[in-house]
Amino acid sequence: MQNSESEDEMDSPDGPGSSHIPPTIYVIKFHQGTAREAVEWLIERIEAKNKYGGAELLVRCEPQKQGQEFSVRDLDQFLYPGQTLDMVLTPAEREYCVRHQLEALRAKQEEGHVPGHPSASLFPGQSIIGVYLAEGLITDMLPIHDRQALDILSSQWYKAIYQGAPFGKSGLPPTPLPLPPRTEEGGSEGSQDNIKDKPRHDPSPYTEKIRAYFGEAVAMYFSFLGFYTMALLLPAALGLLQLVLSVDTLTEHALFAAFNLIWVTILLELWKRQCAGLSYGWGTLDRQYQLQATRPNYLGRMIQNPITGRYEPTYPAWKTKSKLYMVSAPAVSVCVVLALWVMVGAFWAEEQLVDWRRSYGSIAGVFTHVPSAFYAALVWLMNYYYKKLATALTDWENHRTQSEYDWHRVSKLVIFEFVNNFSSLFYIAFYIQDTDMLCSQVATMLIVTQMINHFQEALLPYVVKKAYAQFETQVLIQLREHPLTAKLFEEAVRPVNNCPLEEEPVPVLALDAKDPRITQAKEEADLDPYLDTYDDYLEMFVQFGYVFLFSSVYPMAAFWAVLNNILELKTDAFKLCRVFRRPRVKKVGSIGVWQGAFELLGCVAVMTNCALLCLSPRVRTLAPAASSVEWVLLFVLLEHIIIAAKVALMWLVPNQPLWVRQALEKITYQSKLALKNERGKKTRRHLSRRFRSVHGMPRSGSRSRGTTPVAQNGGVRHRSPHRSDY
Amino acid sequence: MQNSESEDEMDSPDGPGSSHIPPTIYVIKFHQGTAREAVEWLIERIEAKNKYGGAELLVRCEPQKQGQEFSVRDLDQFLYPGQTLDMVLTPAEREYCVRHQLEALRAKQEEGHVPGHPSASLFPGQSIIGVYLAEGLITDMLPIHDRQALDILSSQWYKAIYQGAPFGKSGLPPTPLPLPPRTEEGGSEGSQDNIKDKPRHDPSPYTEKIRAYFGEAVAMYFSFLGFYTMALLLPAALGLLQLVLSVDTLTEHALFAAFNLIWVTILLELWKRQCAGLSYGWGTLDRQYQLQATRPNYLGRMIQNPITGRYEPTYPAWKTKSKLYMVSAPAVSVCVVLALWVMVGAFWAEEQLVDWRRSYGSIAGVFTHVPSAFYAALVWLMNYYYKKLATALTDWENHRTQSEYDWHRVSKLVIFEFVNNFSSLFYIAFYIQDTDMLCSQVATMLIVTQMINHFQEALLPYVVKKAYAQFETQVLIQLREHPLTAKLFEEAVRPVNNCPLEEEPVPVLALDAKDPRITQAKEEADLDPYLDTYDDYLEMFVQFGYVFLFSSVYPMAAFWAVLNNILELKTDAFKLCRVFRRPRVKKVGSIGVWQGAFELLGCVAVMTNCALLCLSPRVRTLAPAASSVEWVLLFVLLEHIIIAAKVALMWLVPNQPLWVRQALEKITYQSKLALKNERGKKTRRHLSRRFRSVHGMPRSGSRSRGTTPVAQNGGVRHRSPHRSDY
Repeated sequence: MQNSESEDEMDSPDGPGSSHIPPTIYVIKFHQGTAREAVEWLIERIEAKNKYGGAELLVRCEPQKQGQEFSVRDLDQFLYPGQTLDMVLTPAEREYCVRHQLEALRAKQEEGHVPGHPSASLFPGQSIIGVYLAEGLITDMLPIHDRQALDILSSQWYKAIYQGAPFGKSGLPPTPLPLPPRTEEGGSEGSQDNIKDKPRHDPSPYTEKIRAYFGEAVAMYFSFLGFYTMALLLPAALGLLQLVLSVDTLTEHALFAAFNLIWVTILLELWKRQCAGLSYGWGTLDRQYQLQATRPNYLGRMIQNPITGRYEPTYPAWKTKSKLYMVSAPAVSVCVVLALWVMVGAFWAEEQLVDWRRSYGSIAGVFTHVPSAFYAALVWLMNYYYKKLATALTDWENHRTQSEYDWHRVSKLVIFEFVNNFSSLFYIAFYIQDTDMLCSQVATMLIVTQMINHFQEALLPYVVKKAYAQFETQVLIQLREHPLTAKLFEEAVRPVNNCPLEEEPVPVLALDAKDPRITQAKEEADLDPYLDTYDDYLEMFVQFGYVFLFSSVYPMAAFWAVLNNILELKTDAFKLCRVFRRPRVKKVGSIGVWQGAFELLGCVAVMTNCALLCLSPRVRTLAPAASSVEWVLLFVLLEHIIIAAKVALMWLVPNQPLWVRQALEKITYQSKLALKNERGKKTRRHLSRRFRSVHGMPRSGSRSRGTTPVAQNGGVRHRSPHRSDY
Repeated sequence: MQNSESEDEMDSPDGPGSSHIPPTIYVIKFHQGTAREAVEWLIERIEAKNKYGGAELLVRCEPQKQGQEFSVRDLDQFLYPGQTLDMVLTPAEREYCVRHQLEALRAKQEEGHVPGHPSASLFPGQSIIGVYLAEGLITDMLPIHDRQALDILSSQWYKAIYQGAPFGKSGLPPTPLPLPPRTEEGGSEGSQDNIKDKPRHDPSPYTEKIRAYFGEAVAMYFSFLGFYTMALLLPAALGLLQLVLSVDTLTEHALFAAFNLIWVTILLELWKRQCAGLSYGWGTLDRQYQLQATRPNYLGRMIQNPITGRYEPTYPAWKTKSKLYMVSAPAVSVCVVLALWVMVGAFWAEEQLVDWRRSYGSIAGVFTHVPSAFYAALVWLMNYYYKKLATALTDWENHRTQSEYDWHRVSKLVIFEFVNNFSSLFYIAFYIQDTDMLCSQVATMLIVTQMINHFQEALLPYVVKKAYAQFETQVLIQLREHPLTAKLFEEAVRPVNNCPLEEEPVPVLALDAKDPRITQAKEEADLDPYLDTYDDYLEMFVQFGYVFLFSSVYPMAAFWAVLNNILELKTDAFKLCRVFRRPRVKKVGSIGVWQGAFELLGCVAVMTNCALLCLSPRVRTLAPAASSVEWVLLFVLLEHIIIAAKVALMWLVPNQPLWVRQALEKITYQSKLALKNERGKKTRRHLSRRFRSVHGMPRSGSRSRGTTPVAQNGGVRHRSPHRSDY
């Protein structure tokens, strides 16, 4: 069978006159060896009505198309004035809906295996697309860009020189991109600082635009990046000031360090509040939201959920927990210890080589950097395999929701990354105790490494891709057409023709061969997928560590971090719009495990900074009279005071702004009232039935004798105070 | 006017044959000078129907009685087989209902002042009883015991030699005391250890019996006391073991201390879970419960509550917060510093006297204990005035709910008590560094002081009261009747007769003069009121501190604490049943601020124990090679590890047992569903109206043209997926 591409799309209403081809949302690429029945069966299911277990989407093969019916025909009756149907769902929502429909295709009782592939067995309730992907019947499945919306977004976003959103009011022109609806009405000022307690129903319009196209997870990342960069401005300014004034007294050193460490807590607490505001508006804050979403790859027996009463795949929590504590935690520990050993080994080898050079002269000099290079390569390798291990372990732990899964996977990765990124700095700071070396290391990491990163992650892939495309169009096509080399290309295409199903095409309407969406789908399929925001957050995490862990010896860190982040905002935006495939929309309610990771880093920073100040010989000269023990105890005391202040701050600042708390409580209150009313109605119905039966049937009089006259004048109504207080 | 006593009661049903006088629940004592109109007006209001702003309670004056109607006449129709009306409400619930009704008597618009007392002005919505109490028109208001229920309870409780409940299965006979209903069915085994994760719907039947008579706050205290005593058994056993084996190595010392410190966290976490289970059953766990109860003394303008939409007194939160941070916090700090100065001063004075004795011989010896005695007296005085200050400050801060008020008042008190109780021990441990003195101090406090406390708080007042009663009946009556001394007593009674309203009695039915409830009311009015559980928790807090703060130098502390607590369970029960007035029922959902106070003490204990071990010369000899700085750093490291383990434990153990979490989520889920249904119905109604208007009235056809045919075959039903996802 040929390399067939089916495209699933959500249609704008096909009312009178709307004969234009609706944009393609999803591309599915089948394997060449996939049986014809398997393809036909899947397409049939995708096109089937929802009530028959289908996804109600339109399918067109290459060349072809399809659009979802979606019952939107009469929706315009309910639109606001000036609203068109294109505005009802954002590009992100379209992607989410189509993917959800595709993933929700479940095998039925009678469907034992994929037609044409008896080895690909299906269990009732299993995700069909999942099986196709696992069996390799579908080789690729990708959402493709909405070029028009993307162009509008990118022209306002990374192409704009001054990016208003995260830094203040943005005076951008109104855009045809539909903004997702918000639960409450509110002002639209764009300032990001959420320090005041006023309701901020509408955050930066930028965040909303990003959310409209890329979904919640990406919008949350950019919101965090903007917020964090803003919050760094103050330490950056103080760091510059310290450099300019070149102060050198114990008090000022300690004060600057203490300020930084408290500031970390304040910024993380304020972020938590802003984040709660955002996710409230997005409808992802609620715990109830978690109840709905079982992860597609979650395995379990179908058991009645004690909360919702629905039958759901359920896996015993104790099994997940024992896997976590008995296997995953020890495995992670072993890896961490291994990474530490490798780091210490690299330092030891370098030391040996330096000694060797001293003895044998500069002949050995060329080798002194071999251990560093070797170590760097080893870290890269370890990271690569550890990532696989962490993912496998987390898969095996079998967490129910996506957010739990992400939490456990990312926390495993973060622990390892922490060791890889910071252990050598800790070694320099506290074992070698060389402050100058530490400073230069931190500076190198912050300035050089991060700049290289920008180039690597965004510009380089783009340039390579462009160059390759150039090469392809100019060289390959000529080669293909040249009589001498044309045969080579034919050779490569031949195996496709061996497929027995090639002769008769799959009965799906074909798109026009020159349809732009076919070129687009092919182009975008060549790009790398943007899996998640993990790498972006990790970059911030590492930077956060450089800035705060060693801020007492290198106060300029914050300044460089700010410069880097301003560039990061641009390159990340560019990367998302141009370098990667369109990311899958992911709904998130917070930055997840990163919040805790940053907070933990903030606590570790208190210890490292106190220890650095305590060790610093310059600071030590300020109090030469104190004994060593007194000196150590002074810094232990300082550390305890700062940590106590941090804990008190975390505890005093509410995690959600007042308006969010009130809104949540209001919903809870109204829900409880509604439940009370519902139960009240039931009880009333029950009681009035009983009342009627007591008075209608004289046989039951023996039970109610003596009370009947009273019950008659208030039997039912009098019960209400008792009923209403459960 | 005479010393009139009105008694408010809740009646059992006055059906045929129930002509017995219902038990008295509440006694109100008017001041002699209270105007007759004021008394009559209040009684009128108390007896009035609820819909006219009354409390619907019966009033009888001395001699007299009154019972609430409560619409319970036909309630027996809905009783379970074998259930009688007396079982429907527990004694605690009766007290709560009657007090609630009395406190809910609010002044109406037209009532400017109390009749007969123009100076006692009333604002609309003000609590009438509150004004009477504040103006001194009512001198006393007390609930009186239900003697029958009390006798049954006490025979099973403090009179039983082996008190089964908190220590294991209790084989007690069934009791006629009505047990409050529980939300879920469950087993009735009485073991208190909640370590396993199984649903514990029915905690110790004891706790429920205490709750049935004394209410939630007292039951929670006894549940905590039992749990805490059980949890102490393990450290007590280990302490004994250490004494018997007289181990003395660093490892064992450190291990015992570390175990104790981790055990504190485990026990507090497990208690939190048990507590959540209890309060779930009691209906006080829910946050929603808080919404309902505005404290009677809360002042504020009537503003619409943003959550419930009801008009409620509201006081700006920022005012409360600024009062808290600007005034209360500094005031508390000043008091704490003052207390520290007094403590240091006392030690300094004692030292001076010891020096003086050395110089001048034993003549001065008698004075060496003067500073201690003086300090003890000063602490008592400081406590007395500080308590007043703390209460006044908290009143002034004006917290909305009773639990917030309690939290802020008790936290102020706990800080001060911490300083008073432990600062001298800290001084001995870390300034004087005398381990033997520390040991003997802790032992004295734990054994002698606590024993004296038992005697003081329960037995002494009882003995004094009994002796006085004896004295009164045997001596005073004779004196009163003796011609020589009778005049003295007449003199004392005379001012009553000067009251102009004496002549005509208040128009309230009188009880029989020899009615036992009159004697009972008079007897109980003489008793001291049991204000709250504060003193009882404080005792536990101080003991907890002695046991854990210094457990590495005095491991036997836990053993003595267990012995003391077993006695405490008895004396506290006796105190509540016999020594004090019947306590007012208070609903609580947790032990409130004490949970945090105990947890904080657990953290401080890590620091003190590490420091004590570090200072101990015996432990120091175990590693003579280590330098001082290394030695200190070793213990700093140990401290950090233990604190990290504690934090990890607190974070890993869920605060509520699984069954409570599931039950709460189920309620939330059902509530949200109910709200969805309610809103769905409204939308459906709205849409079908609109649909009808669109199709009924041709004029609106211009808006819906082209969509009408589609809307007809599914206009309303098709909307449901959109409606359901808010």
